[in-house]
Formats: sequence, C-alpha cells, structure tokens
Amino acid sequence: MSNHPELVDQLQRWSCAFGLDPTETAAGTGTTMHDLARELWPLHRSLTGHGVRQTLRILQRELPPLTLHEVPSGTRCFDWTVPPEWTVRDAWLEDPTGRRLARFQDHNLHLMGYSRPLDQVMDLEELRPHLHTRPDLPDAIPFTTSYYKENWGFCLSHREYEQLRPGPYRVFIDATLAPGHLTYGEAIIPGDSREEILLSTYVCHPSMANNELSGPVVTTFLGRWLLGRPRRRFTYRLVYAPETLGAILYLSRHLDHLRRRVRAAFNLTCVGDDRAYSYLPSRRGDTLADRTALHVLGHLAPGFQRYSFLQRGSDERQYCSPGVDLPMALMMRTKYGRYPEYHTSLDDLERVVTPAGLFGAYRVHQHALLCLEHNRTWRTTVTCEPNLGSRGLWPTTSQGVVGPAVIDITNLLAHADGATDLLAIADHLGRPLWELVGLVGLLEDKGLLAEVPRPEATTDLNRQYMP
Amino acid sequence: MSNHPELVDQLQRWSCAFGLDPTETAAGTGTTMHDLARELWPLHRSLTGHGVRQTLRILQRELPPLTLHEVPSGTRCFDWTVPPEWTVRDAWLEDPTGRRLARFQDHNLHLMGYSRPLDQVMDLEELRPHLHTRPDLPDAIPFTTSYYKENWGFCLSHREYEQLRPGPYRVFIDATLAPGHLTYGEAIIPGDSREEILLSTYVCHPSMANNELSGPVVTTFLGRWLLGRPRRRFTYRLVYAPETLGAILYLSRHLDHLRRRVRAAFNLTCVGDDRAYSYLPSRRGDTLADRTALHVLGHLAPGFQRYSFLQRGSDERQYCSPGVDLPMALMMRTKYGRYPEYHTSLDDLERVVTPAGLFGAYRVHQHALLCLEHNRTWRTTVTCEPNLGSRGLWPTTSQGVVGPAVIDITNLLAHADGATDLLAIADHLGRPLWELVGLVGLLEDKGLLAEVPRPEATTDLNRQYMP
Amino acid sequence: MSNHPELVDQLQRWSCAFGLDPTETAAGTGTTMHDLARELWPLHRSLTGHGVRQTLRILQRELPPLTLHEVPSGTRCFDWTVPPEWTVRDAWLEDPTGRRLARFQDHNLHLMGYSRPLDQVMDLEELRPHLHTRPDLPDAIPFTTSYYKENWGFCLSHREYEQLRPGPYRVFIDATLAPGHLTYGEAIIPGDSREEILLSTYVCHPSMANNELSGPVVTTFLGRWLLGRPRRRFTYRLVYAPETLGAILYLSRHLDHLRRRVRAAFNLTCVGDDRAYSYLPSRRGDTLADRTALHVLGHLAPGFQRYSFLQRGSDERQYCSPGVDLPMALMMRTKYGRYPEYHTSLDDLERVVTPAGLFGAYRVHQHALLCLEHNRTWRTTVTCEPNLGSRGLWPTTSQGVVGPAVIDITNLLAHADGATDLLAIADHLGRPLWELVGLVGLLEDKGLLAEVPRPEATTDLNRQYMP
Repeated sequence: MSNHPELVDQLQRWSCAFGLDPTETAAGTGTTMHDLARELWPLHRSLTGHGVRQTLRILQRELPPLTLHEVPSGTRCFDWTVPPEWTVRDAWLEDPTGRRLARFQDHNLHLMGYSRPLDQVMDLEELRPHLHTRPDLPDAIPFTTSYYKENWGFCLSHREYEQLRPGPYRVFIDATLAPGHLTYGEAIIPGDSREEILLSTYVCHPSMANNELSGPVVTTFLGRWLLGRPRRRFTYRLVYAPETLGAILYLSRHLDHLRRRVRAAFNLTCVGDDRAYSYLPSRRGDTLADRTALHVLGHLAPGFQRYSFLQRGSDERQYCSPGVDLPMALMMRTKYGRYPEYHTSLDDLERVVTPAGLFGAYRVHQHALLCLEHNRTWRTTVTCEPNLGSRGLWPTTSQGVVGPAVIDITNLLAHADGATDLLAIADHLGRPLWELVGLVGLLEDKGLLAEVPRPEATTDLNRQYMP
Repeated sequence: MSNHPELVDQLQRWSCAFGLDPTETAAGTGTTMHDLARELWPLHRSLTGHGVRQTLRILQRELPPLTLHEVPSGTRCFDWTVPPEWTVRDAWLEDPTGRRLARFQDHNLHLMGYSRPLDQVMDLEELRPHLHTRPDLPDAIPFTTSYYKENWGFCLSHREYEQLRPGPYRVFIDATLAPGHLTYGEAIIPGDSREEILLSTYVCHPSMANNELSGPVVTTFLGRWLLGRPRRRFTYRLVYAPETLGAILYLSRHLDHLRRRVRAAFNLTCVGDDRAYSYLPSRRGDTLADRTALHVLGHLAPGFQRYSFLQRGSDERQYCSPGVDLPMALMMRTKYGRYPEYHTSLDDLERVVTPAGLFGAYRVHQHALLCLEHNRTWRTTVTCEPNLGSRGLWPTTSQGVVGPAVIDITNLLAHADGATDLLAIADHLGRPLWELVGLVGLLEDKGLLAEVPRPEATTDLNRQYMP
Repeated sequence: MSNHPELVDQLQRWSCAFGLDPTETAAGTGTTMHDLARELWPLHRSLTGHGVRQTLRILQRELPPLTLHEVPSGTRCFDWTVPPEWTVRDAWLEDPTGRRLARFQDHNLHLMGYSRPLDQVMDLEELRPHLHTRPDLPDAIPFTTSYYKENWGFCLSHREYEQLRPGPYRVFIDATLAPGHLTYGEAIIPGDSREEILLSTYVCHPSMANNELSGPVVTTFLGRWLLGRPRRRFTYRLVYAPETLGAILYLSRHLDHLRRRVRAAFNLTCVGDDRAYSYLPSRRGDTLADRTALHVLGHLAPGFQRYSFLQRGSDERQYCSPGVDLPMALMMRTKYGRYPEYHTSLDDLERVVTPAGLFGAYRVHQHALLCLEHNRTWRTTVTCEPNLGSRGLWPTTSQGVVGPAVIDITNLLAHADGATDLLAIADHLGRPLWELVGLVGLLEDKGLLAEVPRPEATTDLNRQYMP
C-alpha cells in the first residue's frame, strides 16, 4: 500500500476503534480479579443467608450500580417457593475420644447445605448415612445440599472418614432455618438504546472458586469496564442470583421485559481456570449470542470445546426454557462437571482458578460485548463500486500493490447490502470483526456506508424453535 | 437413582406404555405367518382372476374387516383400462417324443402371465421366441407377463431348455381372456381420529414368496394386531391390490380422500427374507413416514440399506407420483431386484422367506405404527424448570445420583415447546421414541406436559416439492 | 431395449434436439477465433481512444448487430466521471548514447496507460520512479495504467532495465488527453421472449491475449452462432465495454431494464488458454447462472477450479454489487491473476491463448446457453404413471430389458411436478441436461408432459441476500 499513504494514516486513526484497552493484562487486571475472589472466598454462601449478602456488598463496593433485592421466604415464583433462610453459627462432630472434626469453622463445605439444627449423640452406624465423602478424591471435602427436604449431613474427606472408630459421636449443628429472605443483586448500566445485553451469574456456593467465585468476579469487572466506557450502545443488565431458584425468581419478576428487550445474553460460570475455552449454545443454537460466541472463540481460541445444549447445567436451563427462550450462550473456561475438582474443596484459588484464567474469560467476554456494540448493518451509498482512488483509498496506478486493507474495503462494500449485519459479513470474509471495525468507521466517515436500522432480535424471539 | 425410589416405581408402571407385546416371537408369530404364506403359495395369482380372489378370501378369514372389490374389465382409471379377466385351466408343451413339459400344473410360473389360449403344433424354431429362461440361474423358472399386448409364452429352466430336441412340439394353453373383473381388497380399522395411516401391499404374482406373499401376510398380521389393540389413535387403511394397475385403480377412486386424510403410508413388499433391512424414501424424502422409518430403522437396524427414490419400483411409483404425493416410505428386508432369486421360482418359502424374516419386518412396522400413535406434540405447563423434587422426580440431596431417566425428563421438558413433535425430540436426543413414551406419560400424569393439537401433515401435503 | 424398436426410432429423431453443431471443432472454429484475435492484437486499446473503436468495428464486421456508443468525457455515471480521451501517436526513451528504447511502436505496453504528453531530458535517477518492470519475469513488459491521476510512465523488461546506464535520458511522449468519448459496443439478438440473457466482456487492454482478446472474440462467435439459430427463446444482450468504468457506465444507463429482464448473465474473461476450467459465482452463489455454470462444468470439466466471490476481479464486481445483483457467474479457463503471464506482454497468442483454448470456452458457453434455452418447467399430464407400453415407450413383456432411456422417461415423469425446472431435475438425476432434452421433446410430443410457465428469475432478484 506504499502508493496511498493517506489510507495508512486514516487507518492509524481508526485502529483503536474496537474499544479494548491494551494496557489491561493477566498480571494486572487478572491479579486484581484473583485478589477479589480471595476476599470473597471465606464467606459462607448458600441458597439464602448472610454469606450471600456479604458477598453482594463487597461486589457493590467494586460496582456501585449493584443493588440488593430481598425476597421473603414463602414467596411463590412459577413452580417454586422461596424456602426459609438458613443461618449457621457453628457445626462439628465429636468422636468417641472427644476430638472435634468436620468443623464448619475450618471449612464451610463440612456442613451439608440447609442442615437443620441438631445436638445429639449417636453411634457411628447411625451417623454414617449422614456423612458424605468422595472415595475417588480421598482428600476432597464434597459439596452437598438438601434445600427442599429437611435433612442434615456432614461432608469430609474420605481419608478422614476411613479413620473413624466405632463409638458414640456427638453431632452439633447450631443453625436456624427460619422465615427470612432470599437475596439477589442487579446492576443496570444504561446505554443509548433500551435494547439490553444480559449478563447472569450466580452466588450460592460456599468456598469454591471456578464453580462460583469466577462468575461474579469476572461479571463485576466487566461491569466496571462497561461503566468506564465513554458511551454504550446497549443497556447492560447484570444479574447475581442463587443458581436455579434465583434465576427462576428473577425471570418470574422480569420475563416480559427481558423477552422484549434482551438482544443477547451470556451466563458466566466456570470462567476462572486456565485449561480450556468452552462454548455451550442456547436451545436454538443460532441466536445473536451464539453467533457472537462462536465468532469470538473461533478467532481467539480456535481449539475451543463445543458442547450441546443437552449438556447444559447452569442457569441457561431457565433462561433458555420453552416460553422464555432468551438468546443466551455460554463462553466458559472448563465447563462445570468436566474438571476433577468440581463441587469439592479442591476447586480453589490455588489449584484451579488463576489470574490468567480469569483474565482470559474477561477478555473473551469483552470481545463479545464489543462485537455486539459494533454489530450494525450497513448499506453502500453508491451503486456499483465507488471511486476509491478519488478518496485516497486505492492505489492510483494499477501497478500499486493492493494491500489487505484495500481488499477488506472492497469486500465490505460488496457485502454491505442493508440486510447483512457486520458479524455475518466478518464470518463470510473469515475475518475477526475487530479487524474490520476501523475500516467500517473510515468508510462511514467517507460517506460510503450508511447504517440501516434493523430490529434484528425481535424476529429471533418470535421465531419458533425447530431442533 | 437410589435416592428417589418413587420415580423407579412410577417408571415401572409406565414401562409397557409403548404397546409392543413381548410374548410375540419369531418362533411363534413368525412361524404362524410363514404357515399362512405356505397356504397361499399354490394359488394362481395374476393381474386378475380367481387366484387373486382365493388369496383375498383366505386373508379375509384371518382379518375379517377385509372386503373384496370387483372392478369390471374395460373400466377406465386415469391413463389405463382394466383388461379382460384371465382364467387358466391347464397348459403344457409336448415334445417330439410325446413327453409333456413346462406343465402349468407343476408350477404356475411355467405359463407366461396373460397368455392367450392355443393348441397348435409347431417346430422348435417357431416355438423358441416364446420360451423364456434365465441362463444366469439355470435351475430357475423365470416370471414373465404380457398384460397389455396379446401374446403367449412359456417359462422354463435353462437346463431344461438346453435339452430340447428339434422336431414338432404341441403347444397347449387352455385359458380364457374374457370380460370379467379385477379384484382388490380393502380393510378399514377405525381409530379415534379420521386421520389415516395407509398400508399398501400387492396380490398379483403367482407362486413367489418374498416378492409377493411376504407383503400381504405381514400386512394382514399387522391388521390383526391393530384390531386387538384396545384403542387406536389413527384410522388404518389396508389396501391389497394387484401391483401398478391395482394401485392406480385404487387411487383413481380415492385420491381426494387419501390426500386429505393420510398422515403416513407404508408400502409392504419384500418383507420376508432374513438378509437385510432396507429403506426407500418418498419422493420428497422428508415426510412423516420417512422420519418414522428412519427413526425406527436407525435404532433397530442401524446398518440398514438406504435407497434413493430413483431406485423405486413398486406401488410407491403411483402413491408418490406428482399430484398424488402421499407420504409413503418403504421399510423392506432385501429390496426387489436386489436378491438373486427375485422374479423366479427360486423366490420361495424355503430358500428366501423365513419365519424370522417375516417377524423382523412385522416388528419394524409395529414400531413404526406405534411411533406414529405416540408422536404427539407437547408443551411444558410450567415456565422455567418445574420443581421435580417435590414430585418425586429428582433426588432430594444434591449428592444423589442423577440417573438417565432424570436427564431424559429434563430434556423432554426443555424441548416440549409446543412446536416440536416427540419424534423430532427423540431424534434430537438421540433416543428411541419407545424409551421416552413412559416418561412422557408420567410427566403428563404429573401435569407437567400438556398436549398441543397439531395438524402436521396438512402442511406436508400442501408444500411444494423441491428435489 | 430390443423389445421396443419404436422408442429407438423416436429417440433417433430427437437426438439433435439440444442444438450443438457437431461439425464445429477446435481446428475449425477455434482457429478462426484465433485468427480474429490475431487481427485485433496490434490495436492500441485503452480505457478510451481510437484503438477501442477500431476493435469494435472489426467485431461489428463479424457480428453486424453490434452497435457502437460514444459517451462524452465528463459524463457522470454513479460515482464516476468519464475521463478525457487519450490519443497516443508515439513514445520512447532515448538513452545517453542516443539509442531509443521502450518504443511504443514496438509494443504498446511500453507506455503506461493514460500517460500525459512529455518531451524532457532527465537523469536516470529522476526517470527511475517512472519505470515499471517485473523482476520476477525479467523478459516481460508489465501492463500499467494511471487513469484517474495525471502521471506518466514507461514499462520495460527487467532485463533491459538492468542495463540502463547513468546519464541524461530524453523522455518523449506524443499523446493527447483531451475531451472526447468513451466507446462501448452493444448487440441485441432478439428472441421469442423479452427475458434476456446477458453476456458481458471488456475491451480496454492493449496487446494482451487471454486477459483481453479471448473475451470479445468468444463473445462475438457466440453471437454469430446465436444469430444462426432458427429460433431463440431468450433475447441475448452482448455488451463490450472498457472494464470497470465501462460496466459502471452501462449499468448507470440500463440498471432498471437489466434488473427486470435479465434471467442469467455471464462475464467472459480469460476464456482463451488451454490449462484449466474455472468457475466464479455470483455474490449470491445460487442464481440461475450459477446453477447452469455448475451443471455444465460439472459434466464437461469435472475437475474445474472453484473460486469464491471473494476472489472476484472483473466486471462481476459491478454486475453483482448490492442493489444491482444481476445473476452473473463466470466460466473461465485460467482465472485472471492465476497464470504467470497475466498483465504482461507474455500473455500472448503463442504462449497462452490457443485455438483449442478458445474453442473449449466457446463450447462450454454454448452448453450453458442451450441449457438455459431448454430449461423449462413441466408437469405430467397424467395422474399416476401413464401407460407407456401403449405409446411404444415400454417393453410389452415384463421380461423385456428396461433400458436407460426408459428409466430416464419414468424419472422425468416422476419429477415433472410443475414446480421443478429441468435443470433441477437433471441435477437430481445426476444426468447432463443435454441427454434429457430429446426425451423431454418425445414426451411432450406424446402429450405426457405439458409446460408450466414460471417467472422464476423474478423471485431471485427480489430475494434478499444472506451470505
């Protein structure tokens, strides 16, 4: 392109058009995210209770638009009822020698979630059915809950379990199951349009890292970054709720609004380890969120793992259920259930979740949100090819080298037919959208492209599902 | 699923929901079918004539709703005219030594179909053009007809043909070609709906087993089984007619009715040998009959042979012709023309057709008809996932094993969107429909699924064909 | 088919139905085309000027309906303006020893297209930026132009360039850039219908063979052949214009007409060498022109090279631009830019373009045009299969061999549903359309097929583009 230096200059001016901040790094932003996860680690989260509130207040400190919402026990939401609030003060077992073990104070996974209060002495054989271990991971304390059936239990490492001696055991659980509230958080970050992008994540697991803390931490940092952008095309809605029931509750309150407004949605879970990138589609598989996720992962992590909607397991189960059908896809690192430490005490901030792992997921979601921000539909303003040479966009002699930028320009113009959005054009050209954004701005500046308003997602939402 | 025994009990109650009778076997039902074929073997069937009537009367004994219909010679049907009725009393050749050969009494294939009466002495050289053999199968008597041009001929084994000595031969054919009737059979087995499933088969070939008797025999046993079911969703129409002309005649009388009512159709031919399973699609290739056949064969006989509609050859030529376009597919054992004994005396009840061969085809068609009976469209009654634990359908502690049945339940609910029929859901899940029927019934019982009426086939019939 | 000689006779009568003349050969027609190219070789063509007019007048001699159109300099067409007309009388360089080189009289590629007049002495170093060579092809004179920015330059072989000695050089260009005209040619060959087939080619390159002369020569011979046909279904529009600007100009004058009328279009470029066959699709990729090109090349040159529309480079850039979207595909020999001699003096009538090369492209386009002429839509007149035997189209005894022609007949009838055109049926049957045309005529003669009028291309043109 030596023959048209003007184009090189103009492209320079447009090169930061996409909106990523190159100064953010795994060592910088990634470490800050990891530090926040470490601060949240010891809090005792469950379906309800004080640990969830503490978690959300710390996140609110990082992302001030975050507001907390309290829903009373007994509230109906679709097919469900908010259960009593669960408060734990202490819990342990005392063995025949008086030694205390499975102490809640040592690790909050030791107590089965929603265990009822108890102070009772019983034989080991009577105790056994209430003890949960993972023989395949003898050092791991497993994660267990019984939200909807009154029960109690302790979780401990299989190694410790095998050393239990017969005799009387005292079982002590100082907990309350009483009318209270379920707590969730919501942050709305307004944009130019009332059309929304939804980010959902969950807060309900005790001390676990990839399958809990990575989600709210990356979501919160995405929120901070969105807030810091000078302008947003879309309104962003960030939802932090206990998994399953929290998502159902949130949908029961906002379903019509979400179906009218949400153009794309991502559920952030397992976004903290550094092993893989994974994609799980929406039920329909071809929504704007799916197209965006496939585009971003295809260019940034070409070897990413593809799952089927049949392998779903987190809140996409609700957001993509029939009659809800929000355009939600997942871009995970290693998927829940697919790494050995999943749902045990080994899913921690040393072995599993790393600054680089968190940062990778953060970057991938930044790319996706920026793709959505830039994914407009254009038409060429000129019938036939425009005279690019007269605008400094084409070599003036036929001998001049036609560089890749010029080829992109002609291809952009040749496909800007007012019906194909930029994401589809980028996919068709085999180019990442972020490498085309500067050229599009340049062509818009030159008056060669004009945006065509397209209420795209509406049709998506109204279309019937065919598997 | 040890944690929710209630589900196991409930599934037990639903396990026979599909409707197959496990006591039917190749040794039992298969042998009974083979016996019926043996009874029909010696009858002299042709395009018209007494052999067809005798055959249909025996089938009527087995399936009382079967009625016989007589159509006079000379009747026009679309582009065709019903020919004279053909009656044969005897036929043979007498060689120069006075020995009689190619005796109709020995094997009814010896006489070419629709041979005119003759009693004449002629030289071997004059006789030769009227003798038909199969040099590639020297022991086989081939099957030959000349329905629409007056002619005569004899068929004999090539071995016998080569031993013919020169000299005068007497040709004796005691037959009548005279105004009479073409005979076909029809059985209507009513169901809850006026929508119909059509089974067609043909009766017009003399003593041949796979390419004749297997079709009417399996069809008749399917009819008996349908009659014995306590309830049928669809009305079943079973048509037994001479191939080609019989199907054209039947269509000329019932075209509008069939196009309005038939939701799926199968043509039963070559359903008696034990070598292969084969599929031949409708002209469109994606009708409900095709989807059902592919589903059933895909699960029961995964290595089945797939043919193209370009390889059609039986009455699907009429039922799928432009402007008729019934949704007819074929599930055969070894396809006509694809086994060496085809259209010869070797296609018999010893070498080719077996009880196991007949029973396999019977079972495959039972599966297809039951898939159609159960192929309804449901929607979930609950927005978001229902609370399965409260209904005994989910383990109450998160540690409980989530068994395959629970996964099927959530997948069924997640795809029951009121637009996707059970066959499509089963295909999407990669599961045979018959393994889902019990769960669907259970979920309907629990009030979690509600049926959505869908006039599916109507759109199929009105859609234009694109190859 | 020994049993139905009547069919053999009837097919004989129909065997020339397609319309090719078997007496045309590469040695005959191919050599005549090559001779015409040789006559046009020395003319000095450019974007405008006398060489274009001379070229078109010679072509007019061969194809009398060709008319010349003159468009004044300064005329606006969409985003462009017709530049001044360029006339060259002489041009050369004189080296320090007085030797003249890069003489326009020796080869018209020596002078950069649209060089302004000049007579000036300058140092070699001052001259160098105006000299163009191809170091990778040291014997080739490259082709260079500067249509829209005033400039001057000389092109010479790199071998000659390397021998230039320092010292004063006289640069002599006796040329005029003055108001005049741009010239293009157009031939309308009327047919029974006002629907049109468009053939476009370009005249603007100086002495080059594959990437210039092959196009107008083959187009002209196609025009002669079309004129000689007793009857044409379509009206044919042949356009000869300077590349890019000529096509844009032509579209600016005829866009509405072309969008309403053109059913298929081909751009003829690089249709003269004997190395490859190539296909470049329209922007949509599935127009009637694309289907025809793929059908023809698939049968005649199965190993043909497939390009993407992203690899476009000739006037398809204009004819397929958004809002124009004519159904234009390209059937080339070796594509522009894909052979080493492209855009140099080596692209000549000895090394690159041959009689056989020209004739191959001519034949391929004849096949395509005849496919279009014969690509009608039929429906069977008879419900169910017609009685073919009664019309001499089927063996009268079932023993008679059913030959390939009979299979084609039944397949044609089974797919003639009034919605599928012959091209689609031929593709479905895997048969070249030209082998079915005779049978279709025969079946129409017998009253078994009736044509269905179909305004097919209209829907194509109105359909939105989805990449």
